[in-house]
Amino acid sequence: MQTLKVDLAERSYPIYVGAKLLQQSDTWLPHIRGKSCVTVTNTTIAPLYLDTLKAGLTAKPHSAVILPDGERYKTLDTLDQVYSHLLEEHVDRKATLLALGGGVVGDMTGFAAASYQRGVDFIQIPTTLLAMVDSSVGGKTGVNHRLGKNMIGAFHQPQCVLVDTDTLKTLPARELSAGLAEVIKYGLIRDTAFLQWLQEHMAELLACDPDALAYAIYRACEHKAEVVAADEREAGQRALLNLGHTFGHAIEAAMGYGQWLHGEAVAAGTVMAADLSQRMGWLSADEVTWVNTLFAQAHLPVNPPECLSAADFMRYMSVDKKVLDGSLRLVLLQGLGNAVITADFDTVALQAVLRRDV
Amino acid sequence: MQTLKVDLAERSYPIYVGAKLLQQSDTWLPHIRGKSCVTVTNTTIAPLYLDTLKAGLTAKPHSAVILPDGERYKTLDTLDQVYSHLLEEHVDRKATLLALGGGVVGDMTGFAAASYQRGVDFIQIPTTLLAMVDSSVGGKTGVNHRLGKNMIGAFHQPQCVLVDTDTLKTLPARELSAGLAEVIKYGLIRDTAFLQWLQEHMAELLACDPDALAYAIYRACEHKAEVVAADEREAGQRALLNLGHTFGHAIEAAMGYGQWLHGEAVAAGTVMAADLSQRMGWLSADEVTWVNTLFAQAHLPVNPPECLSAADFMRYMSVDKKVLDGSLRLVLLQGLGNAVITADFDTVALQAVLRRDV
Repeated sequence: MQTLKVDLAERSYPIYVGAKLLQQSDTWLPHIRGKSCVTVTNTTIAPLYLDTLKAGLTAKPHSAVILPDGERYKTLDTLDQVYSHLLEEHVDRKATLLALGGGVVGDMTGFAAASYQRGVDFIQIPTTLLAMVDSSVGGKTGVNHRLGKNMIGAFHQPQCVLVDTDTLKTLPARELSAGLAEVIKYGLIRDTAFLQWLQEHMAELLACDPDALAYAIYRACEHKAEVVAADEREAGQRALLNLGHTFGHAIEAAMGYGQWLHGEAVAAGTVMAADLSQRMGWLSADEVTWVNTLFAQAHLPVNPPECLSAADFMRYMSVDKKVLDGSLRLVLLQGLGNAVITADFDTVALQAVLRRDV
Repeated sequence: MQTLKVDLAERSYPIYVGAKLLQQSDTWLPHIRGKSCVTVTNTTIAPLYLDTLKAGLTAKPHSAVILPDGERYKTLDTLDQVYSHLLEEHVDRKATLLALGGGVVGDMTGFAAASYQRGVDFIQIPTTLLAMVDSSVGGKTGVNHRLGKNMIGAFHQPQCVLVDTDTLKTLPARELSAGLAEVIKYGLIRDTAFLQWLQEHMAELLACDPDALAYAIYRACEHKAEVVAADEREAGQRALLNLGHTFGHAIEAAMGYGQWLHGEAVAAGTVMAADLSQRMGWLSADEVTWVNTLFAQAHLPVNPPECLSAADFMRYMSVDKKVLDGSLRLVLLQGLGNAVITADFDTVALQAVLRRDV
């Protein structure tokens, strides 16, 4: 097991990465401060891992909420089911919620923890690669609104993050690829050496080689932890982590949440950001091709859905959280490994990207 | 105009108390940091004060959400209407929400501000005595759940609180009395001189004498600001402000939100807390009678509804937010002006109070 720290003064917490961590309850039990805890999970993950988790909780009063699986359930209505369970079980504000699942479970459980009785503890136990390397670290929690993704939420840091790499054995290949999109993202933003490593080890990662996966997850979490520690509430550089996300969120929203996996939309969105960067003279054609190839190697889409028009994109992008005082801001690449956030992009070039002009 | 400060380091903010403050936009405009703002109010208050507020906002893009009036609308569903408005209007995260109304509007707007795009600014503009002296100060925000009052929410401090005492001219007498319950509460918890002053000036307060009201509001806010500054997230003494609230919330929930006004339930609940304190030997019979008389002078109920059994009370009290690790904690009085929070009360005496044994 490897341990990383997210350094946020009194809100600091560890990330544990390793095999069979669910079984090693001596690692995570000390992070449950009160007497009782409630696991929030979904119908896919509950049959696979809930019993293992429960076995470690013998001394604690425990109950579980099992939600339907899928991004389309990441809503206020589903959240209300969690609140109802907590109130029916008379769960008090010293309780700890355990988020056992992917990003949807983690985001919703985190927001339930942020808002139940104005805030209770929670622990992230991500079971997808995407959640392990991205959403479970950093305290962003929330739900979607029919008019925009992640528009309702809070910053609420977990007590710890438990990354049991064995849970990836049951992850569908498509979701493994989607997680790799976010892993590649860290390389593109701030680490060319890691980018190189990813290209060289892509076959092992796709084959679920445990050592390759553990290394990639650890490096990705290390990047995320550094960025979050420097900018917890996204006043500055944390926004760089949204490379590809403004385009990606538009794809997800326009297609209907869950049709494209988040990582798939981020992959296509990142290629669009690279395309715009090239049109502005910041990346070479070779570099864009290299990025394209890397995503394709990871079995990820590199083009947005054909049915989306430039006008569709603009409509969905105008509600992005990075819009400030009416100006759209985009994360672009000034070279591989060097992302910037800017409102000062070439709008003609943006339209060309959205229209997919050659 | 008088100014008070709630001292919370980087989250500090002023409370302005005075006449015609809505018109004096030079006081509050500097607290709106971004370009745009959105007023959240209700169908009762909008016709009375929305235009006055708007007149001060000429230079800012502005829109308004007008909610139905009443505690029964303090729900996730109503909150969703606010989110929908914000998203439809493309409101970004530098916007400021203005909460114009009573405690329901303030609590909901505050939670909308806490959770919209993971947090935007807001300003409290309370128009009821209850909201002026209690809910608008201190950053507690939230909505009710069908299984419990204020069970979903966040701590989120406003940029400022604007108490325009002129808005009390349109407040129904029943609501003025309900507000006085919380004013009396501060005296009972921590200020016997103020308690004495209230008894002597009750007639002027009920007659809406502007000087008497301004003094009472200022003193109440001063107490609230002191307590909140010492214990923002209610780890300790802030819980004392819930004198009468555990019983009161049970009355409100059991009767259906809105049947009893919050202040009315707190008045009856405080008399129950005084009764229990007497049965435990902490208050004399004369002191309990004195408390009883003061609430009666303010035209407030001093008995819980007859239809509520001891079992009803226990059921609703068991979901109180002050329950920790399964133990009910109550705020009681060890003498007038001296409240304590304790899980170590006499349960037989509590049952006698709930059964209303003579």
